[in-house]
Amino acid sequence: MENINKIGICAPKGFYANGLHCGIRKNKSKKDLSLIYSDVMCTAASCYTQNKVKGAPIYVTKEHLEDHKAQAIIINSGNANTCNDNGIEIANQMCELSATALKLKPEDIIVASTGVIGEKLDITPIQNHIGELVQGLNDNNSLAACEGIMTTDTIAKQFDTAFEIDGHTCHIGAIAKGSGMIHPNMATMLAFVTSDVAISEDMLIEVLHEVCNDTFNMVTIDGDTSTNDMLSILCNGKAGNPEIREKNENYAIFKNALFKICKDLSKAIAKDGEGATKLLTCAVVHAKSDKDAKAIAKSVIASSLVKSAMFGCDANWGRILCAIGYSDAQYDETTIDVSFESNAGSIAVCKNSQGLQVDEEKALEILKADEIIIHVDMNNGEESAESWGCDLTYDYVKINGEYRT
Amino acid sequence: MENINKIGICAPKGFYANGLHCGIRKNKSKKDLSLIYSDVMCTAASCYTQNKVKGAPIYVTKEHLEDHKAQAIIINSGNANTCNDNGIEIANQMCELSATALKLKPEDIIVASTGVIGEKLDITPIQNHIGELVQGLNDNNSLAACEGIMTTDTIAKQFDTAFEIDGHTCHIGAIAKGSGMIHPNMATMLAFVTSDVAISEDMLIEVLHEVCNDTFNMVTIDGDTSTNDMLSILCNGKAGNPEIREKNENYAIFKNALFKICKDLSKAIAKDGEGATKLLTCAVVHAKSDKDAKAIAKSVIASSLVKSAMFGCDANWGRILCAIGYSDAQYDETTIDVSFESNAGSIAVCKNSQGLQVDEEKALEILKADEIIIHVDMNNGEESAESWGCDLTYDYVKINGEYRT
Repeated sequence: MENINKIGICAPKGFYANGLHCGIRKNKSKKDLSLIYSDVMCTAASCYTQNKVKGAPIYVTKEHLEDHKAQAIIINSGNANTCNDNGIEIANQMCELSATALKLKPEDIIVASTGVIGEKLDITPIQNHIGELVQGLNDNNSLAACEGIMTTDTIAKQFDTAFEIDGHTCHIGAIAKGSGMIHPNMATMLAFVTSDVAISEDMLIEVLHEVCNDTFNMVTIDGDTSTNDMLSILCNGKAGNPEIREKNENYAIFKNALFKICKDLSKAIAKDGEGATKLLTCAVVHAKSDKDAKAIAKSVIASSLVKSAMFGCDANWGRILCAIGYSDAQYDETTIDVSFESNAGSIAVCKNSQGLQVDEEKALEILKADEIIIHVDMNNGEESAESWGCDLTYDYVKINGEYRT
Repeated sequence: MENINKIGICAPKGFYANGLHCGIRKNKSKKDLSLIYSDVMCTAASCYTQNKVKGAPIYVTKEHLEDHKAQAIIINSGNANTCNDNGIEIANQMCELSATALKLKPEDIIVASTGVIGEKLDITPIQNHIGELVQGLNDNNSLAACEGIMTTDTIAKQFDTAFEIDGHTCHIGAIAKGSGMIHPNMATMLAFVTSDVAISEDMLIEVLHEVCNDTFNMVTIDGDTSTNDMLSILCNGKAGNPEIREKNENYAIFKNALFKICKDLSKAIAKDGEGATKLLTCAVVHAKSDKDAKAIAKSVIASSLVKSAMFGCDANWGRILCAIGYSDAQYDETTIDVSFESNAGSIAVCKNSQGLQVDEEKALEILKADEIIIHVDMNNGEESAESWGCDLTYDYVKINGEYRT
C-alpha cells in the first residue's frame, strides 16, 4: 500500500529528505538548510546557470558529477556562497560534513546555495546542525526540504507523479524555489528531482536537457539570470524497471512524466514570481521553427511593458507585437494574430498584425483573472512553444528595493 | 547679435519650429502636433528602430530620405500610426498636407509618430490644423515643437551648442522625447537634430551612426525597443563653413559637438524614464574591446534587479556582477572591481570580483542621491563605455499598467 505522506521528492522509493533552521538566516522561523538522500547510489545529472559569474557550489557540484553518480544533495538558503574568497572551500566543507554524517564520500554529494551574493558563508551553523539534519531524514519530509530552499517564494513548490514502465510503477518527485532573478536560459532557479526509475547516464543527461529547454528555460520573471541556480536529478533505479538505455517507448514515457513535473514547477515558479499577482502564459503557434517559436514566446513574456499592462488589465496588444518585433526570431510581421484567454473567456485583439475592434469591457473581465494566456498565432509555419512569466507589480519593486535590509 | 530666444532646434540659422494641440489627444492642454522647417533644402540622415515591427512613418521617411534631402519634419504624438491597415496612407497624407502648406514636395518631408500602437490615426485633426501650425512657425519656438512630441515625458528635452569651423560659427540644436519602451539599439526614442553646418551626405550618415551608437543606443529604460522611434538630422549649411567632405579635423569638431548634444539628450531621457527617481550611469573601463565594454554597460543598466536596488538605495553589488555575468561580453570574471559614486562621495564595494567590507551608512548616503554612477573596472583591457538608465520604481508599474486608460 502506498504511503500517502510520501509526496514530493519522497514519492519515489528510497528517497529521504529533511530541512531545518540552522542559523544562516537571522529569522528563526525560516528554514535555511535542506538535505535530500537516497539509500542507494543514484545516476545523476544537472543543468547549470549560463551566467558566466557562477556560484562556488556550481563548480564543486560539476566536479562531483563528473562520474554521473551521487547519493545526496545538501542545500542552504540565505547566502549564495558566490563572489567571496572562500566559496569553494565552504562548498567543499558542506559536502564533507554531509558525507561524514551520511557515511558517504564527499564526491557523491551535490551542493547548492541560494541567497545574497558576495557575503562569506559561515560554515559553523551548518556544522552545528548537520547531525540533527541527518537524524531527521524521513520519507515523508519533502515539505521541510522544500521550505529550506525558499528565499522570497511565498508558496512551497513540490510535485510528484507516477507512471508505468513494463509493469513497474515508477515515480518522479521534485521541489523547486523561485522567485526573482529568473530568466531563460537555465538555470532559472534551484530545482531538485528524484526518481526511482532505472535509466542510463547518457539517457538521463539527454532527457534532462531536453525537458529543461522546454520548461525551466521558458520561464522568465525579471530577465536576470542568476549566478547559482541549477536543476539536478537523482535516479536510484528502485522501481525495478528494465534500465532505459535508448530513446525507445520507455524513454518517451519517462520524458513525458519528467516534462509534466518540470512544467508544473515552471508554472508554479512563474506564478509565484516576486510581487506577482498573475501567471502569464504566452502560447505561440505556427512559427517557422522551434527556435523562432521559443524566441517569440520568451520575448513577449519578458517585456516589462507587457507585464505592466497585464498587471493593469490593459489589453494593450501593441506591446505584444512590439516585443515580437525585437525578438531574434524569423517570421512574417504582417500575419500575426493575438488573443487573450482566461477562465472568463477569450477575446481576439489583433488579426494579420492589425487591431480588431475590441469590446474593452469583455477584455477587462478576461484580464482580471489571475491566470492569463496570451495566444500568438504567427500563421507562418508548424512549430509552437509556451513560455511562463508573471505581471510586473509595485511589490516586485518593493521586494527588490529592500532585499538586503 | 545672437537672439537669446533662438534655442534648441531653432539655434542653428534658418530653422523654424512650432507645436500645437490639434485634437489627436483628448487632453486639450497637451500639444500633439509639431513641425520643424528649414528655409533652405537640407542634407538629411536618420537612424531607425531595429524592431522588425515598424511604424508606418518609418517606411515613409525611409523612402523620402533615399535622396538624403529634406526640408521639414512633421510629428504627431498620441498615436503611433503602427499596426493598423491604413498607416502608410495616413503617413503619406501627413507629408502631403505639410508639403502643400509649406510649398514643398512631399518627398522632402520627414514624418514621425509616437503613442499608442494599433489604433487608426485620424487625419482630420491634422488637416484642420496644418495651416495654423505652418503660420505659427517661428525661430524662437523650439519648446512648442518639443512639447508636441512628448508622451509620458515629464520634462521637455532640448539642447543646443555652438562650435567654430574655419572661423565660421556653427550650431547644433535638438529635441527628443522618451520615456518608456526605450532600450538599445536605436531607435530608443524620437530625436530631431538641426544644424547649420555644411556637410556632405556620406559624412553626415557616417557621423550620425557613429554618435548614435555611443549615445542613444546606450540608453535603456525598460528593455523594450519601440516600433516607431528614430533619430533624424537636418543640416542646411547656412553657417557658411567649407563643406565637411572627409574625416578631417572639421569632421572631428562637428562630431564632438553632435556627441555632446546627443549625450545630453540621452542622459535627459534616462533621467526622465517612466517613474524614474534617479539617473543611473554605468561607466565601464578596461574592457577587452569596445563591443565588450558596451555589452557590459548595457547589461548592468538594464537589469531589473540592479534598477530596483538603486531605487531602494541598496549597495547590492552582487546583482551588478550577476548582470555582467549574463552579458554577451568576453572578460575575466575574477578581476572585476565595482564602486558607486554620487555627489555625496564614492565607495568601493567589490575588488577582484569579491566583496569588500562596506560602510553601509556611507553607501546609503551615496545612493540616496538622484544621480548615481556605477563604476565597473574590468582590469582586462583598454576599452571603455558608458550607458544610461534609471531606477525601477512603483511609478513605472503604475504608468504602464494604466497607459491606455
